[in-house]
Amino acid sequence: MLRIGMLTSGGDCQALNAAMRGVYKSIMNNATEPVEFYGFLNGYQGLMYGRFKLLTDRDFTGLMTKGGTFLGTSRTPFKEIREPDKDGNDKVALMKQTYYKLMLDCLVMLGGNGSTKTANLLSEEGLNVVTLPKTIDNDLYGTDMTFGFQSAVDIATRAIDEIHTTASSHNRVFIVEVMGHKVGWLPLNAGMAGGADIILLPEIPYDIKKVADAIEQRAKTGHQFTIIAVAEGAISKEDAALSKKEYKKKLAKSKYPSVSYEIAAEIQKLTGREVRVTVPGHTQRGGAPCAYDRVFASRLGAEAGKLILKKQYGFMVGYKNREMVKVPLKEVAGKLKVIDPKSEIIKEAKMLGICFGD
Amino acid sequence: MLRIGMLTSGGDCQALNAAMRGVYKSIMNNATEPVEFYGFLNGYQGLMYGRFKLLTDRDFTGLMTKGGTFLGTSRTPFKEIREPDKDGNDKVALMKQTYYKLMLDCLVMLGGNGSTKTANLLSEEGLNVVTLPKTIDNDLYGTDMTFGFQSAVDIATRAIDEIHTTASSHNRVFIVEVMGHKVGWLPLNAGMAGGADIILLPEIPYDIKKVADAIEQRAKTGHQFTIIAVAEGAISKEDAALSKKEYKKKLAKSKYPSVSYEIAAEIQKLTGREVRVTVPGHTQRGGAPCAYDRVFASRLGAEAGKLILKKQYGFMVGYKNREMVKVPLKEVAGKLKVIDPKSEIIKEAKMLGICFGD
Amino acid sequence: MLRIGMLTSGGDCQALNAAMRGVYKSIMNNATEPVEFYGFLNGYQGLMYGRFKLLTDRDFTGLMTKGGTFLGTSRTPFKEIREPDKDGNDKVALMKQTYYKLMLDCLVMLGGNGSTKTANLLSEEGLNVVTLPKTIDNDLYGTDMTFGFQSAVDIATRAIDEIHTTASSHNRVFIVEVMGHKVGWLPLNAGMAGGADIILLPEIPYDIKKVADAIEQRAKTGHQFTIIAVAEGAISKEDAALSKKEYKKKLAKSKYPSVSYEIAAEIQKLTGREVRVTVPGHTQRGGAPCAYDRVFASRLGAEAGKLILKKQYGFMVGYKNREMVKVPLKEVAGKLKVIDPKSEIIKEAKMLGICFGD
Amino acid sequence: MLRIGMLTSGGDCQALNAAMRGVYKSIMNNATEPVEFYGFLNGYQGLMYGRFKLLTDRDFTGLMTKGGTFLGTSRTPFKEIREPDKDGNDKVALMKQTYYKLMLDCLVMLGGNGSTKTANLLSEEGLNVVTLPKTIDNDLYGTDMTFGFQSAVDIATRAIDEIHTTASSHNRVFIVEVMGHKVGWLPLNAGMAGGADIILLPEIPYDIKKVADAIEQRAKTGHQFTIIAVAEGAISKEDAALSKKEYKKKLAKSKYPSVSYEIAAEIQKLTGREVRVTVPGHTQRGGAPCAYDRVFASRLGAEAGKLILKKQYGFMVGYKNREMVKVPLKEVAGKLKVIDPKSEIIKEAKMLGICFGD
Repeated sequence: MLRIGMLTSGGDCQALNAAMRGVYKSIMNNATEPVEFYGFLNGYQGLMYGRFKLLTDRDFTGLMTKGGTFLGTSRTPFKEIREPDKDGNDKVALMKQTYYKLMLDCLVMLGGNGSTKTANLLSEEGLNVVTLPKTIDNDLYGTDMTFGFQSAVDIATRAIDEIHTTASSHNRVFIVEVMGHKVGWLPLNAGMAGGADIILLPEIPYDIKKVADAIEQRAKTGHQFTIIAVAEGAISKEDAALSKKEYKKKLAKSKYPSVSYEIAAEIQKLTGREVRVTVPGHTQRGGAPCAYDRVFASRLGAEAGKLILKKQYGFMVGYKNREMVKVPLKEVAGKLKVIDPKSEIIKEAKMLGICFGD
Repeated sequence: MLRIGMLTSGGDCQALNAAMRGVYKSIMNNATEPVEFYGFLNGYQGLMYGRFKLLTDRDFTGLMTKGGTFLGTSRTPFKEIREPDKDGNDKVALMKQTYYKLMLDCLVMLGGNGSTKTANLLSEEGLNVVTLPKTIDNDLYGTDMTFGFQSAVDIATRAIDEIHTTASSHNRVFIVEVMGHKVGWLPLNAGMAGGADIILLPEIPYDIKKVADAIEQRAKTGHQFTIIAVAEGAISKEDAALSKKEYKKKLAKSKYPSVSYEIAAEIQKLTGREVRVTVPGHTQRGGAPCAYDRVFASRLGAEAGKLILKKQYGFMVGYKNREMVKVPLKEVAGKLKVIDPKSEIIKEAKMLGICFGD
Repeated sequence: MLRIGMLTSGGDCQALNAAMRGVYKSIMNNATEPVEFYGFLNGYQGLMYGRFKLLTDRDFTGLMTKGGTFLGTSRTPFKEIREPDKDGNDKVALMKQTYYKLMLDCLVMLGGNGSTKTANLLSEEGLNVVTLPKTIDNDLYGTDMTFGFQSAVDIATRAIDEIHTTASSHNRVFIVEVMGHKVGWLPLNAGMAGGADIILLPEIPYDIKKVADAIEQRAKTGHQFTIIAVAEGAISKEDAALSKKEYKKKLAKSKYPSVSYEIAAEIQKLTGREVRVTVPGHTQRGGAPCAYDRVFASRLGAEAGKLILKKQYGFMVGYKNREMVKVPLKEVAGKLKVIDPKSEIIKEAKMLGICFGD
Repeated sequence: MLRIGMLTSGGDCQALNAAMRGVYKSIMNNATEPVEFYGFLNGYQGLMYGRFKLLTDRDFTGLMTKGGTFLGTSRTPFKEIREPDKDGNDKVALMKQTYYKLMLDCLVMLGGNGSTKTANLLSEEGLNVVTLPKTIDNDLYGTDMTFGFQSAVDIATRAIDEIHTTASSHNRVFIVEVMGHKVGWLPLNAGMAGGADIILLPEIPYDIKKVADAIEQRAKTGHQFTIIAVAEGAISKEDAALSKKEYKKKLAKSKYPSVSYEIAAEIQKLTGREVRVTVPGHTQRGGAPCAYDRVFASRLGAEAGKLILKKQYGFMVGYKNREMVKVPLKEVAGKLKVIDPKSEIIKEAKMLGICFGD
């Protein structure tokens, strides 16, 4: 008997269901012994408190195109994992308890950076763990790609496309705020795909005067409107010079709901132009996964199935140089994959005329 | 020789180009004399200051699927039309001057409520005017439908769809703010199409406690998430009791960027639940028009062409009881088509279980 | 106790699930007595042989955006209803038997023309029946609109849009075959929305020479490509002159899989131009319903619920002149709503330069 | 003065315009001397007969989202390039003549396999040539990816999605024919993304009995419908054993318009089940490029610009192991990148339960 537990953790994204379907199908089709599949509800919470359902074929019918996660999810920051829960219980102990009580052979975790750190901890504590790289931010170390990313790029790009027609009709400056607090892959790609004129990223601090100049430069060559893709975590050169603590304090005091509104106000002041802000927000995590993500998540699922059938644990399934790979969890946990401001893609974007405000 | 001027005024929307293509093609294909077509740039501004381009077949190629308006547009509130411009010139006189200088036979105006008031004024001043009902709000009096509306419903619905998957994965309350300051057709239809549980409209003031109750009621029947479609102009019963002036003053003092954020804060306070706000904003005006709007706008354009060829002026082309009609501008100008809280569609929505907070 | 049976019959289409959700929710939310809801599987077959499932809230969760019908469907032509089944049983008697055995108060049928005829027969036989107008063809008599239609228009239009770019890049003639055997609303609307140059409909027999002329005429004015939207049931003037029997015989002998391929061959012969055929086929019935159809189907469902709660039977719920109406089944059964070649919309399309080959 | 010619050759696809925009912008933004840009019309034909237009910024406005190629294209098979044209002229000589007459520094060619062979020939003849890998088939040797591919996968996947709802409602077997005559990347990826149960590829000859068995096997486990993604060039084991000549003869005699219809007939015979065929056809090349293709094509364009500014000629710009590379044309020309039946992705697909009929 093979007993497998599965959970999704952190912010939801597209293709979580497709990935779980891949894990389930590959094991069910290829296991040489009976299998029991437990789905923990609402992330690590379900593992802590033994909330789960036994999964059958029925649960995976019609799941490929469905957004979100049918198991539910929750955010449990890594730093809280070591703290006791509100009843004073040790969370790690609770999770281990459920794992052993159900006599699991393996836990499959689909999650992003923080969730993978927790998975690594559980692995170090002796549980058999396999993880899949889930995040719209594509910031997971150890893999060239994460599922959810390409679907989110599609949605953010569509928002920029739609803004394009209204911006050009009204000769306005438009800011589209794209998800990405620490890492800018999503705003970079959506900005390039949407034909944004200016892209502001967490990795490349901007000088607001250069941004204003780029807008005026466009006007001089006959383009009265400008589209700016701004990452949630875009940061000015002055703010980048602050200590992390000082910057947090400054943000907390800000009268603007997000950085885009502040940038808008500054541009309006510097150029006298009307600036509008659009925040597609959580729509970027929603809806049906794109074809790319469905194939990719299914393949990752199959590879996870392969590892489990071979009883190889302690890995994240990743994708490097066009090959599926298994990466030891301890090599992945706690590391971010950020944009190098001197990378090929940034140079290409600059050749195309895109301004990064640097 | 037939000389026609054309302009688009007010906020842009989908199918403006399709409608102009309809006017142009129907006249070019059916006129029995030579035709000159003038496109005024950026709305009434172009008419005031004689900024235009002579339009040819080339301008209308590939235009059907293009969002925005290739002529550009601008907002010139009706109350400012009677005021002199910054050089002290009478705006109406300027517009008449351009019209007569170009020896126009007719001016075609594509615009919403305010723009149609200006068109009516020009008509009363002796110009030959035909208008087409453009607005995503579907609030123009004298026509059952406006172009742009159905495309905007598609976009707002898609936003709710995308939020749906993330809301259900996280057990959160989600507010999607849908365009509509004075009139709620767009949030009503998008809310119904998106399966929103609660819809708050300008026409039906809400009681925040009833909204909170509806959320708790859902939780009791096993639905831990709730989707709320909120019109930009949603208003509480208390605020609806204020005078217009008092309410404006209150809004101006609000610390929230829009009503949705205030509603979110109140729900969070009353229910203790996490509430997230999404604002698709100007994306609702953008992108390619949907099939419905393309057919409808093309038909309106053809009917405008018919009127012009018959030299029948002073009308808005509309659609009533499934027939194309011509409505005298003076009957339309300055009137809004609002939702009757006792109408069939509201009753049906309530039967389906949708809460309006009343 | 209120006992309601429900089934979907004929070709599936978008928003069937949304309509059923509307019926279910409106009754569950408003009934003053306990309700049992039976879903018959695979159309009238399920009613004949007592194959059903008891429906609960769970069945209707997440159903709004889902294409197809969760109950399954089947085509049972009206003329076969009166014939005994393969075991020699009277089909109508079988259906009545199931109805009475389950002590149903009412049967809700979602179907198109043929299925509504059967519903009318059951009504005449004494069963309480309410029907909803389902079809992508919008050819049901007694209602201005059917659900499924607008979603199918969206899909067929998108196919034409996609063909547009390739047609213009290659200077080819492209035929897009759009569903519609007897009635052309779908190809007419998709053709107009997609900017087709020529539209061939069942209601307007074409002269192939006029079609070829229109292609050459376009070439003379610089347009080297032409897009033709052809209804599945498009018919030439010669064939329209044949008796129905002769025409059927001719079709049966044809070496072409469908009329589009024959038209393509003839155009190629007459003009020497390369012609390509695309057949989006059953994709036109598939996928998520558009926003329009979701609202419309939900409203129809609510109105059906209203009738049932008032115990008013023997009606199709329809939509006339922007009002929800109930139409006696006997007035609807067996009648088609076809395009009048002299109608407003055809005249407008001709003004826009669209050729119908007549 | 830098003089650059550009042309698109072969079947059109998505992101051709985005790629050309990338070449143009990167050169215009970075050249240190004046630049003249010539766009040859309709592929190599334009180069042969000196049909071109001088390109300016205006030509590249709003081009990112536009499908097709604004320069037009044509198919000129490589084997015909060496043959004289209808006036007896040497085609290669004609092309060289235009190139030298316009004093071009370089020719940029966007095309697939055959077109790249011609480009290599021109390079060998002494012209400076840079090419970009365009094809929905992703079969170009020397690059991991081609632009157009991912957009085509999106469209073919959507077709399968739409068929899914109708297939499951009617319990039918559905075949979706996906483009790919010699190479199956597109049907493989669309099939996996669409959740197809069976995928038939040119690289993996099928046994029709195994296909029928897979359908019956599904039925035994409660799935009464089956979706089959069939490549245009799918081939049975018997046919694969024929010589190329014999197979061509057999195809020419076939009464079926394409292989899908033959497979449908055989399945119907073997299983008695109703089988329907859908052919999305040229829609797979059409419409706006997806976000992935826009970014990728823009980057390829920028890299082409970089090569030209450095005067490095005789290369195709490609993408290998996540890096932009330049590949000598002679290494690329005439080689196909096919699917290895023993590759990772095929093994994963089989683990997921997908049947390839082998």
